[in-house]
Amino acid sequence: MALVVQKYGGTSVATAERIKHVATRIKRRAASGDSVVAVVSAMGDTTDELIALAHQIADRPHAREMDVLLSTGETQSSALMVMALHAIGVDAISLSGAQAGMRTDSVHRNARILAIEPQRVREEVERGRVVIVAGFQGLTETMDVATIGRGGSDTTAVAFAAALGAQCEIFTDVDGVYTADPRVVPEARKLKDITYEEMLELASKGAKVMAPRAVELGSVYNIPILVASSFSEEPGTLIHGGVDMEGFNRVRGIAHDLDVAKITVRHVPDRPGIAAEIFAPLADARLSVDTIVQNASEEQLTDITFTLAKGDLPRALTHVRVVAEQIGAAEVIADERMGKVSIVGTGIQSAPGYAARMFKALSDAGINIEIISTSEIRITCIVPEERVADAVRALHRAFELEKAEPAELTG
Amino acid sequence: MALVVQKYGGTSVATAERIKHVATRIKRRAASGDSVVAVVSAMGDTTDELIALAHQIADRPHAREMDVLLSTGETQSSALMVMALHAIGVDAISLSGAQAGMRTDSVHRNARILAIEPQRVREEVERGRVVIVAGFQGLTETMDVATIGRGGSDTTAVAFAAALGAQCEIFTDVDGVYTADPRVVPEARKLKDITYEEMLELASKGAKVMAPRAVELGSVYNIPILVASSFSEEPGTLIHGGVDMEGFNRVRGIAHDLDVAKITVRHVPDRPGIAAEIFAPLADARLSVDTIVQNASEEQLTDITFTLAKGDLPRALTHVRVVAEQIGAAEVIADERMGKVSIVGTGIQSAPGYAARMFKALSDAGINIEIISTSEIRITCIVPEERVADAVRALHRAFELEKAEPAELTG
Repeated sequence: MALVVQKYGGTSVATAERIKHVATRIKRRAASGDSVVAVVSAMGDTTDELIALAHQIADRPHAREMDVLLSTGETQSSALMVMALHAIGVDAISLSGAQAGMRTDSVHRNARILAIEPQRVREEVERGRVVIVAGFQGLTETMDVATIGRGGSDTTAVAFAAALGAQCEIFTDVDGVYTADPRVVPEARKLKDITYEEMLELASKGAKVMAPRAVELGSVYNIPILVASSFSEEPGTLIHGGVDMEGFNRVRGIAHDLDVAKITVRHVPDRPGIAAEIFAPLADARLSVDTIVQNASEEQLTDITFTLAKGDLPRALTHVRVVAEQIGAAEVIADERMGKVSIVGTGIQSAPGYAARMFKALSDAGINIEIISTSEIRITCIVPEERVADAVRALHRAFELEKAEPAELTG
Repeated sequence: MALVVQKYGGTSVATAERIKHVATRIKRRAASGDSVVAVVSAMGDTTDELIALAHQIADRPHAREMDVLLSTGETQSSALMVMALHAIGVDAISLSGAQAGMRTDSVHRNARILAIEPQRVREEVERGRVVIVAGFQGLTETMDVATIGRGGSDTTAVAFAAALGAQCEIFTDVDGVYTADPRVVPEARKLKDITYEEMLELASKGAKVMAPRAVELGSVYNIPILVASSFSEEPGTLIHGGVDMEGFNRVRGIAHDLDVAKITVRHVPDRPGIAAEIFAPLADARLSVDTIVQNASEEQLTDITFTLAKGDLPRALTHVRVVAEQIGAAEVIADERMGKVSIVGTGIQSAPGYAARMFKALSDAGINIEIISTSEIRITCIVPEERVADAVRALHRAFELEKAEPAELTG
C-alpha cells in the first residue's frame, strides 16, 4: 500500500506503442496495491523538434515563450498516457505541472522549484486514480509557465516523491548504473546500489543514467531512487544515502569522459592573485573550467594547467592569450586530444593505497598520466584521449569490478 | 487608438513562414496606433494529427484528456507567434485560454463559455504589448482545461471582442463572403457587408467562411465582425446587425449544399403524434434532420419527407424502417443524390415575388424542385444533386447578383 512516484523518460514514451507498453507496467504496479503517480517526459524528439521550429521563426526566442512552447510536449504525453491507461481499464487523470502544484521561480528555461503543493495530486490518489504529471514544468508567481531545465522530468519526480513522502523510481532506456560503460568494458557489472555522491561522480559525464540535479535533490531530502529500464524487468540500481560496512572504502565504478581539452599557461609570475587574473575572464564569459593544477617550475615562475570541454576551447584560448600577455607569461599551450578516467567510491580518497594502485595499473598499461585530481570519493587522471578506453579496462581489471560485491552475495 | 481582437486560423499559421507573415501584419496594425489582441488556431493539421495519435492509443479517448492534448496545438502557435513578433521588434506576450480569462463549463470537447475575465489581457495591453491568445480553450471551475468545439477560435475572438468592447476581425483563407460559391459561379461578387442572419444562412453549409456559433455570438452582443483573408490586402466582408434601407428586401446571395439525402415515409396514418413517433428515435440516435415536409396524399394518409446529411442516411434508415412498420406505413423510400439551393436575404420570405421568381428561374432551367422550405430570410429548394450547380448559376443570373449593390455604388 505504498505511494510511489515513477518517471518515464522520452524514449520510454516515444511512440503510441511504447506509451501503451508503459501503461501496462503502471497497471501492473497499481494492481499490486500501490498508489502510482507517474511523471512523463515529452515523446522522443518532440522537444528538439519544437526548439528547431522556434529557431525557424526567431534567432533568439524569448525564454518565457520557449517555456510555453516546450511545456506542451510533456502535456501531450501526459494526456496520451492517461488515454492508454483508460483503454486498459485503469482510472487515471493527467495534471499539468501547474495543476499538480509545482511552483517555480521566474527564471524561464532554467527555473528553480520553490515548492510542491500536492493537494490535487493527493485528492486524485485518494480517489483511487493513477496520476500522470507532465514533467519539466511549473507555474510562477505571475501564473506563467516555466520549465526547469535539462533533466527536468527526473527532478520533477524526485521533488514530488519528497513532497508526498513517496518512493521514487526512474524508468529510462538503460537498466541501471554499471561499474563502467559496458560499451568499453564488456564485463562491466550492474550495481545493485550506490550512494548519491558516487552516482554523481559516475554520472557526471560518462554514465548518463539520470540528471545530476535530481540525484542532488534526492540526496538533500534523502529519497532513495530506483533507476531501472522501462524496456525490461531487470531490477535496476538503488541510489540512496546510506553506506553500509561492505560498501564503504571500495571502488564502485570507473567513470570516463572523452570531452576534455587542456590549456597550459607556462611561466606565470608566481604572485598572489595571479590565478584569479587568469580565471575571472573565463568565468565572466560563462566558460566552465574543470580540473586546475598549478606546479612551481622555476623560481618565481609557475605553470598553470586546466581542463575544459572541447567545444569551449577556442573561446577560452582567446581570453587566456590576452591575459597571458598582460601578466607576462611565457606561452599558452592547448591540447584538445585529452580524456579523463576516474575511480569512484566513498572514502577511497582518504584511504591509503587506492591512488597508488590506480597509478600502477595505468603505468603497467603504458598510459601516461598528464594531470591528477581528487575529490572525497574520486581519483581522476587526465590521459591522452586515445588511451581512455584502455585505461578504463585496465582499472576495471585492477580493482576486480567484474566480481560481485559482498553485499550482493549475501542479499 | 482602437482596441481590436483579431483571429488567425490554422491555414494562416500553418508554417513558420506564414507565422512570420502574420506577425508583420500584426506589427503594421499595431504601428497604426491600435492595440491588438490576436487569437490563434493550431498550426495547419496539428489538431487532426493529435486526434489521430490519440486514436492510435485508445478507441474512445476520454474527453477531458483529449482537451488536454488538443489545447497544446493552440498553445504552441501562440508562443511561436510571439517569437515572430519579438523577432521584428514588437513587444508581445502569449496567454493560454486560462491565463486570458476564458472560463467554461465542464462539457469537455464542446464546452460553453461561461465568462471572460480579461484582467490580464487588459493589463498586458496597457503595458503596450500585443497579446496573443491561444484559441479554442478555457478553464473549468475545477481548474481543468476544456475546449469549446469546432470553430472554437472564431468564437474565442468574438467573445473577447465582446468582453473587451473591441472591434473583431477574423482572418482566414478566403477573402470574404460571396454572393455564391465562386467555384460554381465565376462572376460571383464579394459582399461588402451582410447581416448576422444572412451570414448564418449563407455559411450554414456552402460558404465555410466562419463558424456559425461565432456569428451567433456576434449577433447576441452586436459585435461587428470583419471577415478577410490573411493572405491578401483585400477589404473583406463586414458582418453586422444593422440592415440599411438599401440592403433590406433583396437577395444577397445563393447558398448551396451537395450533402443532402432524402427519406420519404409513404402512406403514414394521419393522426396526432405520428411525426413525433418517427422523429423521436432519430433524435435519440443524435441524427440531425434538416427540412421536413408533410403532404396529405390520400384520405387519413399522409407522406412525410425529410432531408439529412448523406453520411447519416444508413443509420437513419434503420430507425425509420422500424418505426414505419410499427405505425403501418406503406413504404420507406430513400434517395441520396439530392442537393439544396437557397436564396438568402433579410425580408425576402415575407416580400412577394421572390419565391415566384426563384421557382420560375429553376423551371426555365429545366430543374425539377423536389421540396421547398422557407425561413424568415431564406427560400430553399431541394433539387437533384447533379442540377445544383446549374440551379446556383440560374438563380445568380435571375437575381442579378453580379451587379454591384446600391450601397456599394454610393460608398
